[in-house]
Amino acid sequence: MPATEPAPDEICLRAIESFHVGGEVRTLRGLPTEARRLAQGAEPRPVDPNGDHVVGQMYVQAYRLARPRHALPVLFWHGGGMTGVNWETTPDGRPGWLWRFLGAGYDVYVSDAVERGRASWARFPELYAGAPLFRTMDEAWDMFRMGPAHGYRTDPAARLAHAAQQFPVGAFDQFARQWVPRWAGHEAVTSAAYRALLDRVGPCIVVGHSQGGGFALLAAQERPESVRAVVALEPSGAPAAPPAAIPPHLIVWGDHIGDHPVWRRYRATVDAYAAVLARSGAAVESLDLPAEGVRGNSHFLMMDRNSGLIADRVLRWLDALDPRHP
Amino acid sequence: MPATEPAPDEICLRAIESFHVGGEVRTLRGLPTEARRLAQGAEPRPVDPNGDHVVGQMYVQAYRLARPRHALPVLFWHGGGMTGVNWETTPDGRPGWLWRFLGAGYDVYVSDAVERGRASWARFPELYAGAPLFRTMDEAWDMFRMGPAHGYRTDPAARLAHAAQQFPVGAFDQFARQWVPRWAGHEAVTSAAYRALLDRVGPCIVVGHSQGGGFALLAAQERPESVRAVVALEPSGAPAAPPAAIPPHLIVWGDHIGDHPVWRRYRATVDAYAAVLARSGAAVESLDLPAEGVRGNSHFLMMDRNSGLIADRVLRWLDALDPRHP
Repeated sequence: MPATEPAPDEICLRAIESFHVGGEVRTLRGLPTEARRLAQGAEPRPVDPNGDHVVGQMYVQAYRLARPRHALPVLFWHGGGMTGVNWETTPDGRPGWLWRFLGAGYDVYVSDAVERGRASWARFPELYAGAPLFRTMDEAWDMFRMGPAHGYRTDPAARLAHAAQQFPVGAFDQFARQWVPRWAGHEAVTSAAYRALLDRVGPCIVVGHSQGGGFALLAAQERPESVRAVVALEPSGAPAAPPAAIPPHLIVWGDHIGDHPVWRRYRATVDAYAAVLARSGAAVESLDLPAEGVRGNSHFLMMDRNSGLIADRVLRWLDALDPRHP
Repeated sequence: MPATEPAPDEICLRAIESFHVGGEVRTLRGLPTEARRLAQGAEPRPVDPNGDHVVGQMYVQAYRLARPRHALPVLFWHGGGMTGVNWETTPDGRPGWLWRFLGAGYDVYVSDAVERGRASWARFPELYAGAPLFRTMDEAWDMFRMGPAHGYRTDPAARLAHAAQQFPVGAFDQFARQWVPRWAGHEAVTSAAYRALLDRVGPCIVVGHSQGGGFALLAAQERPESVRAVVALEPSGAPAAPPAAIPPHLIVWGDHIGDHPVWRRYRATVDAYAAVLARSGAAVESLDLPAEGVRGNSHFLMMDRNSGLIADRVLRWLDALDPRHP
């Protein structure tokens, strides 16, 4: 790989826009009213939870360049228990992929999927079926492949990291501040919101990470007229049935996948899916970073110390695509 | 008031940054492990909630101009059950105050307060004491002064709005998509996170709305070396004890306050506070829009159809301040 392009010094925008897509109004009845104090210096007032609530919407922030150099925008889709913050400044304070892709001339859309971040979430068990999951720092240290299993300690100095770890592990506690609760079983409503986003945006490139990578693979099947290329960064799953025609795919993998039983299974699922796509004639490339001599990448490739280099690798893959696509 | 300045066509940034401030690590023990399916095509895997979690952090997004025309940045603090989305595109798709204040030459910081949006939230009752509140569209229609009490209907065409309502009520359901759950009783941890933000940013101007207006009034007492001017848009409360020295304050009120029992009480609290400040020699201005002949503003002045005009009024107040301040 070549040396990393420096992040741009200045970016001129014609708009920073945000909006929500998807969601429906649901009505609650029969719940008790509570008295709560909600303002400084005020007395408690009755709060009535009965009435109309919106459920299932997704938040999107669009950065539109004054002079884009590509016809198609890039949509960044985060993973499970995350938000669009994943694509902004890295936890150790370097420019994120949002800034780098804007610098490369793409309009960029960053979303917070249903139930996460600025998308909001709904009361349970009345509107969501059950309670959310809160990822511990202990589990994340393992699942995000910062170090060996059981290598997490509350004391940052005592944690066990993989040798040559590319993630800025000194900023792991800062990274933990951006994690949000997640629900299991919301895949259908989340996919519906992504379809609503694609229907609004039109032709685009989708870059999805982890759970968002799986949603991107599915969206490429469901909306091939919109999704002109997919970049899946360590997708944690793949859809069941491959379609007849599908846009070009790049699938990127970091280090220590083979050492990790859950990631070995996730990758096997995605590798099998990629093989079926390839046999059907689709342009599918799997980029195994360690096999190219790039060692130490965590699950969060876009935050790792070599995140600029990996962004460049993705940007070059997009540049080389059939011009009918990006 | 003069005609509204048009929103700028192009804004050049040297950085879009984000970070979290505040928060502390808390450890949970003794909770049961659950089996959950978290990836497409994968088997359920055990999820262990025991371990370390971060609680009390706040999210901040900083837009830094390539060529700012003012020495101090503007910090936008949203209200209760809201996020920084309040300052972005209005629900009916017009440029928000984020874009307008960037266009006026200010660096802008937009935050999601503790427990809201991209700040994340924590498990209850283990880490937060109790359950959150979810605001209904019914209550919001009344509390945000879209129309008379009990004027909300699920059918948008059947809703009762105030005459000459400035809020784009046709986009009320879109607006409802950006509301997030809130907790009562988190004022201390939220104020601590705002202090951490001010300590990081240094001298600045704070523009706070509703509950965020109350936090801004308090922050001006607690961090007068950082908060050089406060603009409080319909603050829903005021702190108890005014300090000896305090920066200039502008407090802005929309229409139909006098018709609304809760807002009448909230405003009385803030008016009393402003009177004490003024008697102590502080520069405090209350801008009552209906008294100036500007009718029909809702609680969400920065989203109303005349939001550009109100932004201009605030910008002119800032321009006229003592140059030792902004």
